[in-house]
Amino acid sequence: MAYTIEQIARALGAEAAGAPDIEIDRVAEPADAGPRDLALATKPEYANALPLGAARAAMLWEGADWRALGLEAAIMAPRPRYAMAGLSRMFDTGEGWGEGVHASAVIDPTAELGDDVHVAPFAVIGARARIGAGTRIGPHASIGADAVIGDGGLIRDGVRIAARVRIGARVIINPGAVLGGDGFSFVTPEVSGVEAARSTLGDQGDAEAQSYARIHSLGSVRIGDDVEVGSNSSIDRGTVRDTVIGDRTKIDSMVMVGHNVVVGNDTLLCGMVGLAGSARIGDNVVLGGQVGVGDNIFVGDRVIAGGGTGILSNVPAGRVILGYPAMKMESHIEMYKGLRRLGRLYADVADLKKAVIKPAKSD
Amino acid sequence: MAYTIEQIARALGAEAAGAPDIEIDRVAEPADAGPRDLALATKPEYANALPLGAARAAMLWEGADWRALGLEAAIMAPRPRYAMAGLSRMFDTGEGWGEGVHASAVIDPTAELGDDVHVAPFAVIGARARIGAGTRIGPHASIGADAVIGDGGLIRDGVRIAARVRIGARVIINPGAVLGGDGFSFVTPEVSGVEAARSTLGDQGDAEAQSYARIHSLGSVRIGDDVEVGSNSSIDRGTVRDTVIGDRTKIDSMVMVGHNVVVGNDTLLCGMVGLAGSARIGDNVVLGGQVGVGDNIFVGDRVIAGGGTGILSNVPAGRVILGYPAMKMESHIEMYKGLRRLGRLYADVADLKKAVIKPAKSD
Amino acid sequence: MAYTIEQIARALGAEAAGAPDIEIDRVAEPADAGPRDLALATKPEYANALPLGAARAAMLWEGADWRALGLEAAIMAPRPRYAMAGLSRMFDTGEGWGEGVHASAVIDPTAELGDDVHVAPFAVIGARARIGAGTRIGPHASIGADAVIGDGGLIRDGVRIAARVRIGARVIINPGAVLGGDGFSFVTPEVSGVEAARSTLGDQGDAEAQSYARIHSLGSVRIGDDVEVGSNSSIDRGTVRDTVIGDRTKIDSMVMVGHNVVVGNDTLLCGMVGLAGSARIGDNVVLGGQVGVGDNIFVGDRVIAGGGTGILSNVPAGRVILGYPAMKMESHIEMYKGLRRLGRLYADVADLKKAVIKPAKSD
Repeated sequence: MAYTIEQIARALGAEAAGAPDIEIDRVAEPADAGPRDLALATKPEYANALPLGAARAAMLWEGADWRALGLEAAIMAPRPRYAMAGLSRMFDTGEGWGEGVHASAVIDPTAELGDDVHVAPFAVIGARARIGAGTRIGPHASIGADAVIGDGGLIRDGVRIAARVRIGARVIINPGAVLGGDGFSFVTPEVSGVEAARSTLGDQGDAEAQSYARIHSLGSVRIGDDVEVGSNSSIDRGTVRDTVIGDRTKIDSMVMVGHNVVVGNDTLLCGMVGLAGSARIGDNVVLGGQVGVGDNIFVGDRVIAGGGTGILSNVPAGRVILGYPAMKMESHIEMYKGLRRLGRLYADVADLKKAVIKPAKSD
Repeated sequence: MAYTIEQIARALGAEAAGAPDIEIDRVAEPADAGPRDLALATKPEYANALPLGAARAAMLWEGADWRALGLEAAIMAPRPRYAMAGLSRMFDTGEGWGEGVHASAVIDPTAELGDDVHVAPFAVIGARARIGAGTRIGPHASIGADAVIGDGGLIRDGVRIAARVRIGARVIINPGAVLGGDGFSFVTPEVSGVEAARSTLGDQGDAEAQSYARIHSLGSVRIGDDVEVGSNSSIDRGTVRDTVIGDRTKIDSMVMVGHNVVVGNDTLLCGMVGLAGSARIGDNVVLGGQVGVGDNIFVGDRVIAGGGTGILSNVPAGRVILGYPAMKMESHIEMYKGLRRLGRLYADVADLKKAVIKPAKSD
Repeated sequence: MAYTIEQIARALGAEAAGAPDIEIDRVAEPADAGPRDLALATKPEYANALPLGAARAAMLWEGADWRALGLEAAIMAPRPRYAMAGLSRMFDTGEGWGEGVHASAVIDPTAELGDDVHVAPFAVIGARARIGAGTRIGPHASIGADAVIGDGGLIRDGVRIAARVRIGARVIINPGAVLGGDGFSFVTPEVSGVEAARSTLGDQGDAEAQSYARIHSLGSVRIGDDVEVGSNSSIDRGTVRDTVIGDRTKIDSMVMVGHNVVVGNDTLLCGMVGLAGSARIGDNVVLGGQVGVGDNIFVGDRVIAGGGTGILSNVPAGRVILGYPAMKMESHIEMYKGLRRLGRLYADVADLKKAVIKPAKSD
């Protein structure tokens, strides 16, 4: 679907300049842009590539001289990265799944589907499940018994939503994500070596090796409104209460959320983050790629953790952390500098020993 | 399904107190518990929340004064966490899939199904596969040719069990897990830079850049009895022999087990553990979240590794380890303390240099 | 299918010795080998196990004395590990899926299938998708609208290939892999705490907590020829342009490739590698297990990174690196030695202080 420059600018609340009637089919990087593309040149260094393409119009930074860039029209936004949100929504062509309920889907007669629900081929919807209006269920998705999904959701192919999971409105679940796998909860008949090593910080004592008994997951998973979950991520059921993801929280691909975890609102969990059982993560937190949080650990509001951080103890609100084990980012940078110079330090100390303890012939 | 306090206590081998006939529908946390729930208040601090709910009965710690807590009945177990195993089994309501073989399932005529096998919609069972009595196969699961699954198993939705995989009895495989992906095994025509860097510990020499030839995985995967595998985990096929998981070993969500790996009995692999090709893990081992084990590495019986540990060399039996690279947990804690004080150490050495080498004006 | 020793040697371009007519059904490890198996004894230490089995023939190292090992025939190759590539291909028995297009598959009438394409039960192929000749599509795979897959590919069970993904020839995609999940790209209305913390290296300033707006992924994923993708891996769509994987690059199980990432040719990404958004990885790179690469980071050609390396800054071509944060492998090994002796260093400095600043009674 095509939009004019004027229509796009109005939709974004941005300023249009030049020919308002140029029609745009899609957005493109400057070098790839054709005459019906809107080139994204939101910084001067990106605009350098405009001559490599054939764009007549571009999204530019505020105050850019679009004529000097050889363009016929431009859209200028005060925060172009934010304008990209609206722009990308306009030009999203979707999954191409079609409409309605496919004849092959297996839908329990007791399930309730809202208006305009799409169900793709081979989807399975269990007993008493409720799917909100306008929600789209992809191919091979399975929705368990008594699960609830709000309005306007997008459940992509092969998503697994287990029994009793409750999901809010406008949620996007990417392919292969699992909501409601069993929690990893086992117990030995007697106190185990792990329990001993944890209390002694390293000594597992003489506990007998034992086999594990399973603690079944009686809780389920509860997901707020406007949440996204990335491809092949996994959110486990709680043991007694539910595992909870707050409103507007975004979860990247291949993130693992353990049983009983509670994640707040407006939080970002980047790719491959792992949250062990009963961890609690606050609001407006950002955990970078491959961050790990230990079981029962508390991470306060507005904490930011750099990629790979291993969080093994509680983190107060507002802290910016890095490292394994995690420390304040400033401390980590200092420590890392110290580590890089460690060879020099050893040499200095050896020199000092020679100077001070000369006669003693230290080894 | 409801049970009386007396029935529950008898099933758990625990002590009942108070009114034995109170009927219980489910278990709940104290603050959420209604009059037909068994509140879980297994420590005094949990019992504090009982007044927030409406429980008439609770599971308590041994010797607790249930009357003083305002209850009409109580169950007391010497190790309440262990009693939770039996209790959670009694109240597990399952996946709600129904019974029998769904008409949509595609089952090869040469496959053999035991008594009371359930096959959910759209499951696929390949040629000569054998499914043990009472095993339940979820929606969209695919079982490859010649695969064998023992009795009483639970294979949840979207699980992939490849050709020739053999699985023991009473196994639980969570949604999206893959058993029998191909091993990651490639070879270059000549000695590669990686082979050189490994033998020199850092110098890849002047090996030519080369393309890779594929080594096909001729082995499969063998899983013992009473094993669990978490959501979206992956266990690769062996190259010639099988990749092996021992009896009663529990694997969490998003764990990766490479080709030719052998894991012993009664071992726990927590979330996001990664075992590279040909690693060998002993019995009664516990690897915490995000632990990595290098290829061909041996980890002895009863080793415990804290979260995020990177195991790049062999670990003798019984050791408790932490860190990247892994070291004894005590050593790691000492080292970490030293790291935190490194700035101070640099300052001390600078002071010493000034004091000792005053006239030399060292830089 | 059986081959004679002579046929095998000819196919591998290797030397045969002894009885050329012995028929071989499969390859086996020496201790497991029966009379119709080819034992793999490519090093003297492996050959020690030959007497435990019943092999009449073996693959040996160059110059091995096959008669002294009690064999009737042998195949000798100059680089046996490389010969294993051809040998394993000959004896690969495949997935046992059968041929043709299964009646249950849902194939859009506008999709185009080449000659000899196999489509397994419950596969879904979207509008205008094109599948190359000889490609095999497994059970429950879903191929999105306008997706293109080249000739001779193997798309295993439950693979998700989203709309507009383009894949080259002879590609192998293992079960549960997702190609074309949405990129993790969000933006706040105003500058966020993360943007501030990145520019200050640790101070997020007083940015207000904000909610995120979604940037839709308009790009897709482009995969070269002869690529492999492991089980449950995930490759996200690009924001405007495509995420790109070069020719002959091999991706292990549970690897995550973020949006806009570009990976070169002949590169290996081992298990659980994570590449954050817009990372660029060169040709002939090897990233070990659980390696993480930060967003927008550049990793040059022929870089080798050991397991668990955290790459938070650009890496020049040819470097061998290890550690978190990454450093040259030699430097890391030096640093690690220094770390192990840190307690001794503290003791030395304390002694020096005592010796030098005796009267001052420092704390």
